[in-house]
Amino acid sequence: MSEIIAAYLIHGEKHNPEKKAEEIALGLTVGSWTHLPDLEKQQLAKHKGRVVSVESIPAAEERNETASILKIAYPTVNFSPDLPAILTTVFGKLSLDGKIKLIDLQFSNELKSFFPGPRFGIKGLREKLNVYDRPLLMSIFKGVLGKHMDFLTLQLREQALGGIDLVKDDEILFENSLTPFEARITEGKKVLRQVYEETGHRTLYAVNLTGRSFDLKDKARKASSLGADLLLFNVFSYGLDVLQALREDDEIGLPIMAHPAVSGALSASSVYGISYHLLLGKLLRYAGADLSLFPSPYGSVALEKTQALSIGSALTEEDFCKRTFPVPSAGIHPGLVPLLFEDFGIDSVINAGGGVHGHPDGARGGGLAFRQAIDLTLKGVSLADAPSNFAELKRAIDLWGYKEVAVKNG
Amino acid sequence: MSEIIAAYLIHGEKHNPEKKAEEIALGLTVGSWTHLPDLEKQQLAKHKGRVVSVESIPAAEERNETASILKIAYPTVNFSPDLPAILTTVFGKLSLDGKIKLIDLQFSNELKSFFPGPRFGIKGLREKLNVYDRPLLMSIFKGVLGKHMDFLTLQLREQALGGIDLVKDDEILFENSLTPFEARITEGKKVLRQVYEETGHRTLYAVNLTGRSFDLKDKARKASSLGADLLLFNVFSYGLDVLQALREDDEIGLPIMAHPAVSGALSASSVYGISYHLLLGKLLRYAGADLSLFPSPYGSVALEKTQALSIGSALTEEDFCKRTFPVPSAGIHPGLVPLLFEDFGIDSVINAGGGVHGHPDGARGGGLAFRQAIDLTLKGVSLADAPSNFAELKRAIDLWGYKEVAVKNG
Ligand SMILES: [Mg+2]
Ligand SMILES: [Mg+2]
Repeated sequence: MSEIIAAYLIHGEKHNPEKKAEEIALGLTVGSWTHLPDLEKQQLAKHKGRVVSVESIPAAEERNETASILKIAYPTVNFSPDLPAILTTVFGKLSLDGKIKLIDLQFSNELKSFFPGPRFGIKGLREKLNVYDRPLLMSIFKGVLGKHMDFLTLQLREQALGGIDLVKDDEILFENSLTPFEARITEGKKVLRQVYEETGHRTLYAVNLTGRSFDLKDKARKASSLGADLLLFNVFSYGLDVLQALREDDEIGLPIMAHPAVSGALSASSVYGISYHLLLGKLLRYAGADLSLFPSPYGSVALEKTQALSIGSALTEEDFCKRTFPVPSAGIHPGLVPLLFEDFGIDSVINAGGGVHGHPDGARGGGLAFRQAIDLTLKGVSLADAPSNFAELKRAIDLWGYKEVAVKNG
Repeated sequence: MSEIIAAYLIHGEKHNPEKKAEEIALGLTVGSWTHLPDLEKQQLAKHKGRVVSVESIPAAEERNETASILKIAYPTVNFSPDLPAILTTVFGKLSLDGKIKLIDLQFSNELKSFFPGPRFGIKGLREKLNVYDRPLLMSIFKGVLGKHMDFLTLQLREQALGGIDLVKDDEILFENSLTPFEARITEGKKVLRQVYEETGHRTLYAVNLTGRSFDLKDKARKASSLGADLLLFNVFSYGLDVLQALREDDEIGLPIMAHPAVSGALSASSVYGISYHLLLGKLLRYAGADLSLFPSPYGSVALEKTQALSIGSALTEEDFCKRTFPVPSAGIHPGLVPLLFEDFGIDSVINAGGGVHGHPDGARGGGLAFRQAIDLTLKGVSLADAPSNFAELKRAIDLWGYKEVAVKNG
């Protein structure tokens, strides 16, 4: 029998986690069990939830309560194979039932077969860029609200000249008359083709797909027909299933960059909600995001390091589908490149906003500084020993410093 | 200039709420301000966020931190008039930025004009039922997973014979071969017509609209053409904008009952996420829900009373659109009817699962007991003085007790 296994973290003052686990396993499936007639038990056996394990864990010291991890298996025959049905089953009413957090979901192979995973993934994006041996470098438009198209295209050009691989729209840039969606795509394309002709460097631009849910497919198809490179998508303002539908549409056929906007509302509490690992990691990957942005562990808007790393591993570990690029974001400057290598490896995207645009030589200098830091780190050279011809990196380090990383054994 | 004003609750150890408010107002709009040239200031003035107020409030005593309520106004010119754009603007990146909770949104009249509100609302639903002078009575199918159609229709018949106005599907009942969506509508309709012919009592049935997001409109139109009464919808497994689109579709044209499944993941924390008041109250109403279910303050899965009441008032207070029926749910039995009257008034729905099905005389007896409790309460008779011909109510009170409510002055 195919099942999905949900793991929950629960806190309680004097609760009985074994009893709670049984209540969940029955309450969210067949309702009751012990007193059913045998015939009904036979009929309902394949629908009945099952307690997989109950594990006590030490609770945070300041709290006068117990903590446990419950694992409950739900037969997949109980729901249709889509994320809204899964979430309603495993964390519908239960999300309202006290101190409970959904920390993981383990899909059966049968259930996995209904999910697409990324269309391109890490490998496909590398092929688009023809970059295989280093982390990708990404940056973000800054201060674009109320600005005209020439402001955007100039900013895009500077970033591309800095050797940046991916440039994303600001996620708070919506449909507007100064820089409309379609014009951003076509004008952006012109600029990036020009830089490619001048320098041989290829930059891809992720345009923000916004508007009403039921218009998104048409809008994304239009983007595709205009030659858009990627779509940026604020998936948690819509729904994971909408992301999946955009991924599955062959007439769209574009890589999708998932932005974590609003996800903190679901995941920031340690006691309630859905873990970042599951939400920004596994579920985004299964639904089809090619890149997943999440707060880095280094900036002022930061995740705990273990959380950020667990998102990264959920996006890239062996599974049924392609791998999603982890994009740890916020607080990134060139001096952090060795640390980013150590924490997220080569198959990740180094993404900076202020760390590119705030460079003394502007976005172009910022991009170059990052590319220099990446080259040195690949060669095993400490940023402290940056050769003097890496002028942009020197200037970045003068401004923001750098973080030394211990050389690994071997 | 049209604005949306967001209210946030923030906690911090030694933070400066005035500074934080300025950072938000700028960071989520024009990015920076003080050092801009005058010409750019002129150009960007209409896009700039604005600090409306900063108010310190007493923090929960056990925490060694300060608490404040910040109100920030965002110009509506910055975003398209849809909920995904609004949520991304006011609580996108910010949702990830420490201990911050979005507690309210105040829409300008211009912005309100883009939202439909309920198609039927309290008045329209009353007209469908021809019931004007009492709270509606609702119940829920129980234990339907793995059961055949005749089990459902029998349960539906019993509930209708008990005088129940609205019966909702179990929200965890998805598309399945034993009780398919379309058959539930047509078979349910038959049963309810029969009861109406026998007794003159009209019951409406809310069928669970499930499946992939982009199939929902077609499925809902099909439901409408088959004569469905209402749609039950797990809006938080999809997205508020999907609800709005279902509401706006004239070919659907059915009342929508919003289920709070998964909403606890967004709202249960007192420190993070989005308030229940906003999510299950104002936003559901603006997006077009005709009924909003939420945990009652009485059961084991309960909200604090102030929270439950604030949802109720957001659904029913004077505003630009029709009013949404509050449906406080869980832990409801006939003995609580006077309390429900006192807390939620006549324009609410009394909704019970176990309190109907667990009655010694079955669902029919449970329904009758509730109707008797409602009649007595309307007449100002204490349930303690229930006349002896109210046999079902007597039995309910013997089993579950009752709660005396002080008679109001006047
Ligand atoms: Mg941004
Ligand atoms: Mg239920």
